[in-house]
Amino acid sequence: MKVKVVSRILEANERIAADNRALFDENGVYVVNLMSSPGAGKTTVLEQTVKGLMDHLRIGVIEGDIMGTDDAERIGSLDVPVVQINTGGACHLDANMINEVLKDMPLSELDLVFIENVGNLVCPAEFNVGEDVKAMVLSITEGDDKPLKYPLMFQEASVLLLNKMDLAEHLDVNVDKIKQDVISLNGKIKIIECSAKKGTGLDDWLRWLKSQVKR
Amino acid sequence: MKVKVVSRILEANERIAADNRALFDENGVYVVNLMSSPGAGKTTVLEQTVKGLMDHLRIGVIEGDIMGTDDAERIGSLDVPVVQINTGGACHLDANMINEVLKDMPLSELDLVFIENVGNLVCPAEFNVGEDVKAMVLSITEGDDKPLKYPLMFQEASVLLLNKMDLAEHLDVNVDKIKQDVISLNGKIKIIECSAKKGTGLDDWLRWLKSQVKR
Repeated sequence: MKVKVVSRILEANERIAADNRALFDENGVYVVNLMSSPGAGKTTVLEQTVKGLMDHLRIGVIEGDIMGTDDAERIGSLDVPVVQINTGGACHLDANMINEVLKDMPLSELDLVFIENVGNLVCPAEFNVGEDVKAMVLSITEGDDKPLKYPLMFQEASVLLLNKMDLAEHLDVNVDKIKQDVISLNGKIKIIECSAKKGTGLDDWLRWLKSQVKR
Repeated sequence: MKVKVVSRILEANERIAADNRALFDENGVYVVNLMSSPGAGKTTVLEQTVKGLMDHLRIGVIEGDIMGTDDAERIGSLDVPVVQINTGGACHLDANMINEVLKDMPLSELDLVFIENVGNLVCPAEFNVGEDVKAMVLSITEGDDKPLKYPLMFQEASVLLLNKMDLAEHLDVNVDKIKQDVISLNGKIKIIECSAKKGTGLDDWLRWLKSQVKR
């Protein structure tokens, strides 16, 4: 019975995700669903990414949080269109939440939209929102056991940013183990080591994004 | 409609939590539901706590993970009874999952049981499992914006362990802001700064636990 409820919710979500997808395609917008645990550095990655690409691409951002507008204010200060979704308790974004704010995004004037999901290593990976690609951030401070303990997000993501590499020397963390375990879960994933705070290691990520955008 | 489904699930959960609660009371066991983001250090806190208290109290541990038995093996090596729950995808433990494994715990021979929840800063706080107290771990590497962005867990917890304090000098994190924001959400919470990895700062936590246990 419980499974049925869940599967109905996921089916309804897929229908709305397809509507979003059609709208993104009509407008020629490439959409990245960015996911991670709380505090892995999604917003800092986004700040660096917007700064690195805003001279080349027209970027918009949808921010998802349980509550508050901190992240939207951080990104908005870079002078790109931002919409904040407050889920009010829900631990992930779903396609309907995205659908409801798309009217507030000038899609026809954008090349690339980032959706920053709620900080959660589990549920966001279950809900497509109509994105082209799922990308994820794992902070190496979270430990090298995370891929095997939370496999779904690593399986769903096309790109993994291994963040906070500047702290590696202060941690007991085996970065090679992380990479091996991630590849065992998802042989096609692109893994990029970086420190978003220091602004290092993001060149590959920026190049890859530029190569994906449709125009 | 969605709200109704959720409220029915939560009501059913409360009924089973009360059954668990009655069983804990019958056996004179004090139960701590330990929650945090992925990688905040719950298992390391538990390792140190078991080592610090096992000469004084009879301790059991219930480990909750999406999948895998890493944590149960880590705790089991300390020679205390451990049961592993694999939620298989669910992002939190609920009362029924706990109910189903209690038959595998020698409750009548225990004083203190820890339930290590799935790493998730959101949903675990919504599901009572029959515990005496909710405790949480926040790693300072997660940043000082977390309490206001994920308020519920901070409101539900009676104790907050601010972990990985040994990394403070390498981070741009305002620990005083964390504490102020937490207190603004929950004036009764006990905040303890520690480094579970280094084994420092846990004396208050161990003393507090000893004072809570019923026997």
